[in-house]
Amino acid sequence: MEHKLALIGCGTVGQGLLQILHDKKAYLRDAFGFEARVVAISDKLKGSLLVPEGIDIPALLEVLAQGKTLAAYPKALPGQAEPLDPLDMLERTDAGIVAEMTYTDIKTGEPATSYIKKALRLGKHVVTSNKGPAALHYREICELARQNGLQFRIEGTVMSGTPVFHLAEAGLAGNAVLEVKGILNGTTNFILSKMETEGMDYGPALALAQKLGYAEADPTADVEGFDALAKVVILSNVLLGGALKTTDVPCKGISSITKADVEAAKAQGFRYKLIGHARIDNGVVSASVSPQKLPLSDPLAGVMGAQNALSLQTDLMGKITIQGAGAGKIETGFSILSDILAVHRC
Amino acid sequence: MEHKLALIGCGTVGQGLLQILHDKKAYLRDAFGFEARVVAISDKLKGSLLVPEGIDIPALLEVLAQGKTLAAYPKALPGQAEPLDPLDMLERTDAGIVAEMTYTDIKTGEPATSYIKKALRLGKHVVTSNKGPAALHYREICELARQNGLQFRIEGTVMSGTPVFHLAEAGLAGNAVLEVKGILNGTTNFILSKMETEGMDYGPALALAQKLGYAEADPTADVEGFDALAKVVILSNVLLGGALKTTDVPCKGISSITKADVEAAKAQGFRYKLIGHARIDNGVVSASVSPQKLPLSDPLAGVMGAQNALSLQTDLMGKITIQGAGAGKIETGFSILSDILAVHRC
Repeated sequence: MEHKLALIGCGTVGQGLLQILHDKKAYLRDAFGFEARVVAISDKLKGSLLVPEGIDIPALLEVLAQGKTLAAYPKALPGQAEPLDPLDMLERTDAGIVAEMTYTDIKTGEPATSYIKKALRLGKHVVTSNKGPAALHYREICELARQNGLQFRIEGTVMSGTPVFHLAEAGLAGNAVLEVKGILNGTTNFILSKMETEGMDYGPALALAQKLGYAEADPTADVEGFDALAKVVILSNVLLGGALKTTDVPCKGISSITKADVEAAKAQGFRYKLIGHARIDNGVVSASVSPQKLPLSDPLAGVMGAQNALSLQTDLMGKITIQGAGAGKIETGFSILSDILAVHRC
Repeated sequence: MEHKLALIGCGTVGQGLLQILHDKKAYLRDAFGFEARVVAISDKLKGSLLVPEGIDIPALLEVLAQGKTLAAYPKALPGQAEPLDPLDMLERTDAGIVAEMTYTDIKTGEPATSYIKKALRLGKHVVTSNKGPAALHYREICELARQNGLQFRIEGTVMSGTPVFHLAEAGLAGNAVLEVKGILNGTTNFILSKMETEGMDYGPALALAQKLGYAEADPTADVEGFDALAKVVILSNVLLGGALKTTDVPCKGISSITKADVEAAKAQGFRYKLIGHARIDNGVVSASVSPQKLPLSDPLAGVMGAQNALSLQTDLMGKITIQGAGAGKIETGFSILSDILAVHRC
């Protein structure tokens, strides 16, 4: 079956998705009977492109690799580049699935939330890697999707393509999730790992993370725990049935952790990790983000470097832990594909 | 939707499944629209029971808890206990799903394979926790299922209900699995953990595992690696597309590992684990079972006690590791439920 896709946002994640769709075209068709035709793209910085016949992915990726906008898409190919807002693009395309991949605004969830609602109202399934709408408006968006008989899927919002929500939805279906506890931010885990294994202090470890591209020039969202906070709120509301807001969750980052703290913990047989934690207790969901000293026997203690991991405490299966990448162009691009494939299966 | 179920084998796993179906009846109906009516059971030792109206699960579990056979199922309830072979039971029931939960015979895969084939020929989906048919006859059985438009599912054959196959099938769909490496036998991992953390020698650690019920009186299948071998063959053939036989796979257990070996490894920063390993290289699948010294940075090194874990090396997502229970009445019972829910979803 062929699916028509529209992409909102064509930065790293969007280009990762396009790369996979191109590289795995034959495999996806043969293994799953899945074919994708990318018919529309709208990106705030790069412009828009409408190609009902299907975008030529290698030609587009080459244009983007040269740092050009969508207006530079070859004129000899079918299609039309024009300056369309994503909201207008949605009205002009008959795509059945919209992949929303713009940047997270954790204060408002906008403009992504408006894009998503419009797409659902127009009868299009939505998949997204954007934490804003999922952390701030999950229930409302799900209800809108349900009313329209559509799917709203968010695998990439937590741990990129490491399949947390697919795991809970398929493999663990039938379990009640009682508690989740995870290393949800790779940057801080990289910094804490360097502080322990190489005896670095916080400042130099952060500088190294910035040099290697793990941390932004302004590292606040990572090191103060706000990125992990958004993910904990999403996990709470999706897996534990909560209705938490980001302001309900106490949040402490790692910027006050010193080399001496890390070494003292190590001497006691513990290891500092920035832990996102949520639990349900007598029907009440609570959550937190904070640096914690874990015993080395905890499955999360062994997770080093930029990796992410999540332990789910369940009623039937006890504790299940999944570890994998938490970021990356191809990894997050894959999260979008995995949600599109889930739409395809239904 | 209501599904009629037939159970072959009503030992620990079967009773775990029945317990879950009873305890979670309302939840499964409300959350998934799933209802189950157990209409037939056949067990070599406990006899058979045909109840088209649906077996009264609490009444049956009470009979079994008293060590009685199915003939002791209350006469006042609808249904008929009679000495039926599973093959005959299958002909007498209109169940659409058969849960095959008899003991593994890794040399022949029988009688389970005959039960499974007959069920598929009669138009019934089959789910099983039995390693024999999956390790010895996977392709043949899948082809039979395919010809009849049915599902053959085997989540419980590896790591009990820890969702290895669901993970690959749903969350990682689109990835090529290139290599798998796992701690697939809880008994040997318990023994190796005790040898390291409590300085026990192999003999006393094995005796403790037997005392605690992790190891059988004859521990050969566990300690010589044959249980892990069956699981590696299943993983190779299901996830890597191989066609290995158990005799193709070199297999070494842990019975020759000494306390001195474990301590020497520890002093070098390594930890002994019994590792099942399979990989595909230029289209050729190979596998092995052997004790390996893992660096502590390996996600499998931190897996202690009777837990199981599996790392999957994939092309898009890199390494994904899942850790959880590898055995247990409720855990393996859940594996059967998770496969039944997968049939329900389709």
